[in-house]
Parts: sequence; structure tokens; C-alpha cells
Amino acid sequence: MNPHFEKERLMKKRQVVLNENVPFRQVDWGLTKDLVGPEHMGAEKIRVKITEYLPGYSHKLHVHPTQEEVIFVLEGRGISETREDKIEIGPGSVAFVPAGVYHATTNLSHTEPLRAVIVKSPPDDKENQSDS
Amino acid sequence: MNPHFEKERLMKKRQVVLNENVPFRQVDWGLTKDLVGPEHMGAEKIRVKITEYLPGYSHKLHVHPTQEEVIFVLEGRGISETREDKIEIGPGSVAFVPAGVYHATTNLSHTEPLRAVIVKSPPDDKENQSDS
Repeated sequence: MNPHFEKERLMKKRQVVLNENVPFRQVDWGLTKDLVGPEHMGAEKIRVKITEYLPGYSHKLHVHPTQEEVIFVLEGRGISETREDKIEIGPGSVAFVPAGVYHATTNLSHTEPLRAVIVKSPPDDKENQSDS
Repeated sequence: MNPHFEKERLMKKRQVVLNENVPFRQVDWGLTKDLVGPEHMGAEKIRVKITEYLPGYSHKLHVHPTQEEVIFVLEGRGISETREDKIEIGPGSVAFVPAGVYHATTNLSHTEPLRAVIVKSPPDDKENQSDS
């Protein structure tokens, strides 16, 4: 079968993965894995990740010019920071970051990870670090 | 302040809610609540809901012509059904439903709810029930 048609067909199927079967990859500030996105299941509009911000680490203030983001905390305690305020987050906290808003997430604990489901739409965007 | 400007300003703020502080509303097949969407936090591209499919209830096969959906199971056991297959889902299962794919979710338990985070993009779409 023409690989383009095969790709088209696969992208139109409902697919199921088990979170625990998807390995994390290491990044500067912790561990992350993509569950849904263009490279996983062929999503065009949604990216879903699980992210663990390691104890002591934090993101720098950064912005996604066109991308909306949701941070749904599963475990741990942290700070959701913007240029306007800092809000403490914990299990069940849901932070919505509109496109164009500088933001950062910090793990408040020195021993436990801060684990969250991250949702982004569109799936990809240019990320800019703050100059401050 | 001009209400349009006020709305514009609010839509550009990062906001945080606590899941447990948002009440469920009853629907035919269970309980649901919107955490993020156009009416909540001013999201334009993402809807995030928590849904509990009550024991014994199930969705009918239905389709969202332009909307992608992710079902991230938190608790319970169920079936993710399409016209092609049925897959059992439980805690940690992540189902991706592309736009245009008929699908339904059923709670397998007669005593426990099936609880899931639902992500949709775009937030709104016309929903069509299956004629079968």
C-alpha cells in the first residue's frame, strides 16, 4: 500500500495507549513524555504530555506566541508564576495559560516530584525564553 | 472600562482553578464539569472536562466532524468502542479519537464510576449521533 495512504488511514483510527507503558525522556528540568501529538497517534490539534518537574528545578519564564496550555496537577506542590502573580498549585489544580502569556512552573518540594498532565493546542509552537 | 476591553484583558491572564471546587452537572450518562473552555478561563482552542460515566450507562456511537478528543482515564474500567473495535480501558489508559471517527465510551462496572479527563480541540463542534 502507498505509504501516504497508509499514514492517512492510521491517522483516522481511534488509538489507545497505557500511560505506564510510555517511557519518560529526560529534559533539563525533569522528565516528560508525549502521550498524544502529531508524532503519537497522529493528532493535529492536541498535544498531551505527562511531565515531572524534579525537586528543586524550575522552568524559566517563557512564552508560546500562539499556543494555549493547560497544566493539570496530579501530584506534588509547586508554583505557577507569571509576570503578574505567583499561585501555589497542588493535586487537582488546573492552570490555564493563554497564548502570549509569559509563565513558569516551579517545584516547591526538595524531595518529591511535581507531576502534571500538560495539554497544548496547537501541538507545536515556537517557544521564547524571557529576557528577564 | 469598555466591557470588550475588560474581556480581552481577562482572556490574556493565566488562571488557576481547583478541580474539587468546580461542581459537576448531571447529564444523561453521568456527571461532567468543564474546567477549561471558552466559558471558563477564556480558552479558544482547548476544552478540558472531568467526566464520570455512571455504572451501567454508556454513550451512543457519535462523531465530532472537526473535533479531536482525548480520554485520559483516572478511575474505573470501561470500553472504548468504535465501528472497528472495542478496547478495554482503565486507570492510565489514554484514548485518542481523531475528528470524524464514530466512538462511544461505556462503563464496564455496575457499581463504580468510570472517571476520565476529557480534552477536546477545537472546544466546540456539532455532535452527530450514529444512525446505527
